[in-house]
Amino acid sequence: MKQLSPIGPEGAIFHDLLIIPGHSEKPLLDGAIYIKGSDIIDVGTLAEVESRNPSSPKVSMKGYLACPGLVNAHTHASMSFFRDLGHDRVLPTTPGNSMIEDFFFPSEKELTADLIEPLAYSYLVDGLKSGVTFFGDAYFFARGTCQAIDRLGVRGAVAEHHADLGGPLPAGRELWKKTKAWIEDWDFPTITPVVYAHAADTVSREFMNELNDFAVQNQLPFHMHLSQTSGERDRVLTRERMSPVAFAKECGVLRPKTLLVHLLSADEQDIKLLADSGATAGLCPVSEILYEHAPLGRQFVEAGIPIALGTDCAASNDGSDILNEAKVFGLMLRMQGLDHSKSSPHFLLDTITKNGAEALGSPWVGAIKPNKKADIVFMKTGLGVEPQSDPMVNFFYTMGAKQVRHVMVDGQWVLVDGELAKVSEADLRDQFIQALKEIKSRTNLPMTVPTA
Amino acid sequence: MKQLSPIGPEGAIFHDLLIIPGHSEKPLLDGAIYIKGSDIIDVGTLAEVESRNPSSPKVSMKGYLACPGLVNAHTHASMSFFRDLGHDRVLPTTPGNSMIEDFFFPSEKELTADLIEPLAYSYLVDGLKSGVTFFGDAYFFARGTCQAIDRLGVRGAVAEHHADLGGPLPAGRELWKKTKAWIEDWDFPTITPVVYAHAADTVSREFMNELNDFAVQNQLPFHMHLSQTSGERDRVLTRERMSPVAFAKECGVLRPKTLLVHLLSADEQDIKLLADSGATAGLCPVSEILYEHAPLGRQFVEAGIPIALGTDCAASNDGSDILNEAKVFGLMLRMQGLDHSKSSPHFLLDTITKNGAEALGSPWVGAIKPNKKADIVFMKTGLGVEPQSDPMVNFFYTMGAKQVRHVMVDGQWVLVDGELAKVSEADLRDQFIQALKEIKSRTNLPMTVPTA
Repeated sequence: MKQLSPIGPEGAIFHDLLIIPGHSEKPLLDGAIYIKGSDIIDVGTLAEVESRNPSSPKVSMKGYLACPGLVNAHTHASMSFFRDLGHDRVLPTTPGNSMIEDFFFPSEKELTADLIEPLAYSYLVDGLKSGVTFFGDAYFFARGTCQAIDRLGVRGAVAEHHADLGGPLPAGRELWKKTKAWIEDWDFPTITPVVYAHAADTVSREFMNELNDFAVQNQLPFHMHLSQTSGERDRVLTRERMSPVAFAKECGVLRPKTLLVHLLSADEQDIKLLADSGATAGLCPVSEILYEHAPLGRQFVEAGIPIALGTDCAASNDGSDILNEAKVFGLMLRMQGLDHSKSSPHFLLDTITKNGAEALGSPWVGAIKPNKKADIVFMKTGLGVEPQSDPMVNFFYTMGAKQVRHVMVDGQWVLVDGELAKVSEADLRDQFIQALKEIKSRTNLPMTVPTA
Repeated sequence: MKQLSPIGPEGAIFHDLLIIPGHSEKPLLDGAIYIKGSDIIDVGTLAEVESRNPSSPKVSMKGYLACPGLVNAHTHASMSFFRDLGHDRVLPTTPGNSMIEDFFFPSEKELTADLIEPLAYSYLVDGLKSGVTFFGDAYFFARGTCQAIDRLGVRGAVAEHHADLGGPLPAGRELWKKTKAWIEDWDFPTITPVVYAHAADTVSREFMNELNDFAVQNQLPFHMHLSQTSGERDRVLTRERMSPVAFAKECGVLRPKTLLVHLLSADEQDIKLLADSGATAGLCPVSEILYEHAPLGRQFVEAGIPIALGTDCAASNDGSDILNEAKVFGLMLRMQGLDHSKSSPHFLLDTITKNGAEALGSPWVGAIKPNKKADIVFMKTGLGVEPQSDPMVNFFYTMGAKQVRHVMVDGQWVLVDGELAKVSEADLRDQFIQALKEIKSRTNLPMTVPTA
């Protein structure tokens, strides 16, 4: 399509757009965005943008809405091989009742570095087609995840999994040495390196301090599961004589630029600690409802704790459509009795743009504003979603992933007409299928390997 | 596209399909469907179907899933002019607190028959693009809704709105005479006529009996709002000295082939009455959560009451994506503590296929089985949703409206590659915009009329 040819060195003004800018700014009903290189240079009416940037090429996007590339703040993309299998925590091959210990761990023991990149493709592609341009991912052999993100042309904040007190694979101090060296030679320009501790019960106090100190010294974001289950809470209470959240506070983790995920077993005292800290709560409502119980959304909102949403992983959600996650979160907050004004569409948009971007040390994404990176989702509007009398309400309660048509990241097209623009989906799928075959033969999971 | 040319008189076998048959039947991983005229003739493996129907043309649908056309059991399609405006029940023009009396009624007073067909297009198109082929609609001037359904080539069970004790427009006995005459000369072959009473507080005992008697005598489905709000409950308690559900029972309405919608103010005794009756509960979870409170889903499931889902209307949902409605319903049931096994994907599928079709007197739709009508949704599978180790789980928790590509109704294509096949969307939109302009000038709603 001519109108979606690459942007030349002189940049381009995309106009005739309904723009959802983010950062609680009002939608622009007939807006224009000037993009040059990898950046958003200017936003306004066409007359304004043209007068400030004369003789730039113009591209009409009539019939489209533009929103910031969406941030999926907590994912484990390569766990796509568990897709469909985690529901009800019962597997033919693992009759026990612990999803993590009887199901995830034995399978994950079989992972090797070479499988991570292809195993991530499925989850990332589903996310991208749903408007996600930024993945806050953490998993084993994270270089593979970075390679997958890079290959699709999207963006992220990626962390190597660390845990010195258990887990399926060695992920303690030996690995951490290598991770530090990798971070020092970081070679993924559109991916932010992140320090990640798996959880309060799988990471010792000493290791947690070491990880956190490195993050503070190097101004890196810190990402972890915290108070994920009542089991974790019990284990940390026994080991540390305090709650997981209190333990995290003692380790210095409760501070801005940390993303603390799930918090399902947090109590009132924990919520007070969180509220005073500037840390962001990472919630994965669908995963949590299916796997454990609904997140403490109302309590966190009322305590003023910033919230970033994630879709977690294919074992427990199972897709990576973060826009629908936000709709579900909004409905859940209403069910929990939160005052309606506190779950406004602007609030919901922050949970899938700004809040995750900031917590994950990447404030250059998450809004359509000058000086932000040109990560933009173009969604088809038209008859089925009209009238758009309140475009913010419309965005969450009428529109959805089915409207996502074109996506730009870093000023380059990564999805055009719903199809991947930078890489052949057929090639990715072939490699994904090969990796599934391999993991199936190693794990004996009751997995259906697709036919090529 | 050649493969989606019209089916000839000899019929066609669509094969290489992952088939979700409905009626709790197991998915067919590599299935074939033989369609002839408007009917599904045969379903099985390609070898089976070919051997039973030799020399029929074959069409490979590799990479697609086929599911039954989805049933959206409770809609008011023409209310699309309220889209985005019903949230929080607050409108600049109507500072009161009753959405129905201060907002809907004054606007609906301005409706005329000519506006209903074009006003329905938006909602029906959004539904069709989300896989809905059957709309259980009830509204004023319902012939217009039938014309809109007919024009798109979809199907439904449509009712004229009746209420003799209030409401924005006269809808009592005078109208009912005309409705009866219309039903006797019914001229929409793919639409089932339905008898509809607006609600227990807006319909007198005498009128309710009259409506219900006609439905029973003519074996027509009966559709109504019941126990929609605490206000309705209070008014009926005052007027009839019994609950709305008990009143409906006395009028003979609690029986198979009735669809009783919302039931938000039903109590335990009411639920017992419903459970013994064979009537179907029509629930609209998103609309109910946003407008009132979550439906009594767990109680109805535990009482064994059949449930059919609807999306209600654009004032309170706001889209018509019934597949996502079912996902939200499944999550809501988990939040309400329902035993996991009772909200299985097979259960959820029944709520958006079989249960609505049966309650609305149209058991010829809602499954991919021999002798059902050929109403089929073809959804694109592939990398983003794989592996599909449990296709039923995958259907609800990974797939979504964004996968809907082609839709067939009555053996004819109505959506191809995501675009309307029987009618120009641009023409529909022009007429929709004209109708919006007209309703805006009459009502002074704070509505944004799209530009052509």
